Amino acid sequence: MNIVYSTMAQHLGSSAVRDILKLTQGSNVISLAGGLPAEELFPLEAVREAYNRVLTGPASVLQYGLTEGYAPLREKVAARLARQGITVSPSEVVLTTGSQQSIDLLCRMLLDPGDSVLVESPTYLAALQVLGSYRANIVSVASDKDGMLPDDLEHKLQLHRPKLLYAVPTFGNPTGATWSESRRRSIVELCRRYGTLILEDNPYGEIAFAGGDRAGLPPLAAIDGDMGGGSVVYTGTFSKIVAPALRTGWIAGSRELVTTVAKAKQAADLHSSTIDQRALDELLSGYDLDGHIAAISHEYAARMKILSSELRSRNWEGAHWEEPQGGMFLWLTLDKSVNTAELLPLAVARGVAFVPGEVFYPANPDRSTMRLNFTHTPPDLLPLAVERLNEALEEWSGRRLESPNPV
Amino acid sequence: MNIVYSTMAQHLGSSAVRDILKLTQGSNVISLAGGLPAEELFPLEAVREAYNRVLTGPASVLQYGLTEGYAPLREKVAARLARQGITVSPSEVVLTTGSQQSIDLLCRMLLDPGDSVLVESPTYLAALQVLGSYRANIVSVASDKDGMLPDDLEHKLQLHRPKLLYAVPTFGNPTGATWSESRRRSIVELCRRYGTLILEDNPYGEIAFAGGDRAGLPPLAAIDGDMGGGSVVYTGTFSKIVAPALRTGWIAGSRELVTTVAKAKQAADLHSSTIDQRALDELLSGYDLDGHIAAISHEYAARMKILSSELRSRNWEGAHWEEPQGGMFLWLTLDKSVNTAELLPLAVARGVAFVPGEVFYPANPDRSTMRLNFTHTPPDLLPLAVERLNEALEEWSGRRLESPNPV
Repeated sequence: MNIVYSTMAQHLGSSAVRDILKLTQGSNVISLAGGLPAEELFPLEAVREAYNRVLTGPASVLQYGLTEGYAPLREKVAARLARQGITVSPSEVVLTTGSQQSIDLLCRMLLDPGDSVLVESPTYLAALQVLGSYRANIVSVASDKDGMLPDDLEHKLQLHRPKLLYAVPTFGNPTGATWSESRRRSIVELCRRYGTLILEDNPYGEIAFAGGDRAGLPPLAAIDGDMGGGSVVYTGTFSKIVAPALRTGWIAGSRELVTTVAKAKQAADLHSSTIDQRALDELLSGYDLDGHIAAISHEYAARMKILSSELRSRNWEGAHWEEPQGGMFLWLTLDKSVNTAELLPLAVARGVAFVPGEVFYPANPDRSTMRLNFTHTPPDLLPLAVERLNEALEEWSGRRLESPNPV
Repeated sequence: MNIVYSTMAQHLGSSAVRDILKLTQGSNVISLAGGLPAEELFPLEAVREAYNRVLTGPASVLQYGLTEGYAPLREKVAARLARQGITVSPSEVVLTTGSQQSIDLLCRMLLDPGDSVLVESPTYLAALQVLGSYRANIVSVASDKDGMLPDDLEHKLQLHRPKLLYAVPTFGNPTGATWSESRRRSIVELCRRYGTLILEDNPYGEIAFAGGDRAGLPPLAAIDGDMGGGSVVYTGTFSKIVAPALRTGWIAGSRELVTTVAKAKQAADLHSSTIDQRALDELLSGYDLDGHIAAISHEYAARMKILSSELRSRNWEGAHWEEPQGGMFLWLTLDKSVNTAELLPLAVARGVAFVPGEVFYPANPDRSTMRLNFTHTPPDLLPLAVERLNEALEEWSGRRLESPNPV
């Protein structure tokens, strides 16, 4: 049968990069590509005990739940947000299947084809995919290491009258960069003035490395709250601070907005797994999650340092990067002659994988960039990963010398 | 801030009925409204043991999973489908957050605004909501107790050239009706001839009551497979045969279609809970799920008989219903003077709730109908529920006599 797919389906492209990276699964390739946390640090025993307590009864724990999610966990999420200065009631929180679903549901409720959305460039790949599927007009705002540039932002707010600004302002994906406090204030103020909603995506904010001067900056949602609120909707997740398999994220914002998102969620899947939500609620009741977050952050900082130091020791011509102060990624820019998408198959053949930076740009990519994840690979393998990357780069340079046309 | 929502958001209405039914939660109202399985029959201990085994390690069980779902469970789903005559490989199965998500993702990948979709009338409410949100042109096909009428179906296939036909052909929601085998063949043949995809939604098919002559009829997907396949996409769920809280359903169809759905799922939520999927896989390995299904079906049949017998004993003028041969619902039609949406608040005040039939119709509702769930209420409360319904009906009739305008 010949199936005619929707316009939306035609805007959900697969990528050649994903196909190459699929080849690395289960092989001996050291992957710095995925955005995966370290498995050996998962609080497996605490999670097991939490499920055990939940499933000790009553049997009603296995019944259908509310679309908005398990109420006690919504309370705990609201309480954790309060510690960061974000004031929301539990009824202003909806639990979702990871923060990815928060992004999708919000876009579904906001965007008609052609609506403009402002983003950083580069930005989170899967957000670009969602925005693309709703046929948003994706507009990049110029940024430096402190965040979006207010002048360019205001220009684009005036020019495009966007419905939404999407950003990962803390330990961002893919760059690892963190917006400065003054820039945060300027950006929230500007968006409030022009009536543009901000979606603050903050999956990494709690993974802060000691010694950084940008840990503990107020989230955009907290700054917006101080100004009267209603202009920032916030999404977070337990995927990075507990574990991804529990697939529990949340969206927090004004009651009106969150109620609308819940309506979308009801149509989308009725509700997410309440067993997982109840287990997280149990976990948060007894387990020292903050201690756990401190421990994984410490380990991730050490891995980042090893990766950075290995890269430095290679002294590649034209290579540069900023060490991130938290999160999971290091953003490496190579000499501008290098095309990292073309480098990838050589690297995979040598046994190391990364994500070519071009996929994170809505337009005009810098093709000499790559995203390196430092959290998933055991630290003793990081030097080998960089050595293999070095071999791939040498092969790349050699081929370039042999042929006037790059590989 | 004044938020302008998407056109889709404007097509996701809430309902007055849902608001009334919310009032019944946690009260002393006996609810025959929800589509809930019996909590006291949930296999709680087996589920707890399954999670325990999964969470005994390795820690990688907590890592991100594949968008398509946990491979061993996809194999087991394919094997269970094979027993019903549906031949799919595990790669033609995608695990979703309940079958609700299967419906949503398929519609997302198929439907542009204005595309026609054929449905039964009445049909599953949440499917109507999803179709409405994608602004489908929803067209009812005339039915009798054996299913859609082939003549009317062919007429509407010719007239509307629909992209999709959605149906719950076995122990349907809301009517409990089951299509006959010859009607199944005619409908699949017609849709194949006109190139219209069928979405067969089968959440209740395994909940068959002994003695019925329509248990074990081939699913539409099996009939389509015998004719060459590719024209039926099938969705099922563990919600009714294990428990809803695990939120695990599946969609099965041609590889091309299922691959497209997986792309939509990746944007929607990356993947569903893999812990829940692994726990179900464990459960299916050791637990006698078929024995459990037989036991709950036996109990549900008994409850349906009690409800039907209580209704019969009331001898309401004009009331009629067919006893369902499986599933969870009895569809009651009252005298045509009765408006069940107006009856609902009187019933809730008396301590019983139901779903007024009108919400299940895409258009031209029969307002004298209601859907009664017989699986969730303990059997000893069913007579009281019907007594309260009787009181509400008496009050309704009394008010009608007092006033020339109905309540």
